[in-house]
Amino acid sequence: MAYDTNNIFAKMLRGEIPAIKVYEDDHTLAFMDIMPQADGHTLVIPKEEAETIFDLSDEGAAAWMSSVRKVGAAVKKAFNAPGVVVFQLNGKGAGQTVPHVHFHVIPGSIADLRKPHAATQADAELLSEQAEKIKAALND
Amino acid sequence: MAYDTNNIFAKMLRGEIPAIKVYEDDHTLAFMDIMPQADGHTLVIPKEEAETIFDLSDEGAAAWMSSVRKVGAAVKKAFNAPGVVVFQLNGKGAGQTVPHVHFHVIPGSIADLRKPHAATQADAELLSEQAEKIKAALND
Repeated sequence: MAYDTNNIFAKMLRGEIPAIKVYEDDHTLAFMDIMPQADGHTLVIPKEEAETIFDLSDEGAAAWMSSVRKVGAAVKKAFNAPGVVVFQLNGKGAGQTVPHVHFHVIPGSIADLRKPHAATQADAELLSEQAEKIKAALND
Repeated sequence: MAYDTNNIFAKMLRGEIPAIKVYEDDHTLAFMDIMPQADGHTLVIPKEEAETIFDLSDEGAAAWMSSVRKVGAAVKKAFNAPGVVVFQLNGKGAGQTVPHVHFHVIPGSIADLRKPHAATQADAELLSEQAEKIKAALND
């Protein structure tokens, strides 16, 4: 399927809408999920235009995985979490809501996966505070 | 934490216990989850000794991701699935049960994540049939 250049993450990557960023490099961006399933719920995306993992280049996938690991370690540390859950959904049929491939990184447990996404947006100030904690852990 | 060389996936990698394999290369192995959350539930592991994503080398992570994408596409095709869910748990606190890093690849949806693992082992013959379907899709 053709990549929708007007999806919300594409707009974030172009700076057209704000993101509460925690990490960025040439190939990837990480930011707070505004409808989190748990405190510290972060999303990590490749900058490459790809709807699912099947649309990514090997290079794009490798860079993305590297950032997932980096951000995952920071999120675990920032929230003193017992574990880290990493997941992603491919295709509307899987439950993917934004058609730009993304990994969810959650400091918590499988139990958090069994909860639905928040029904309303989290408080932006709270998310910014959480982002600061994660950025501090990344810089440690 | 020191890697436990006696975990069940380490034993599979050494050929000491059987695995219903669907894919193998120099760096990774994929096989059927014997307590599946859905039909076609496959596990993809790096051969590198690593308990969580945080213990992997960049090269090991890149090779692993490449196999996850390959197996994910085959699983989707083999089960004519509306989507593919990819997830993994880091640490006992997250719900990780086998201390060798693994991605779950499920042809299905987020709803499958909300179900627990099967409480009993699936029928080995059924799993072998599913493995054959996935291998056929990989070879297409």
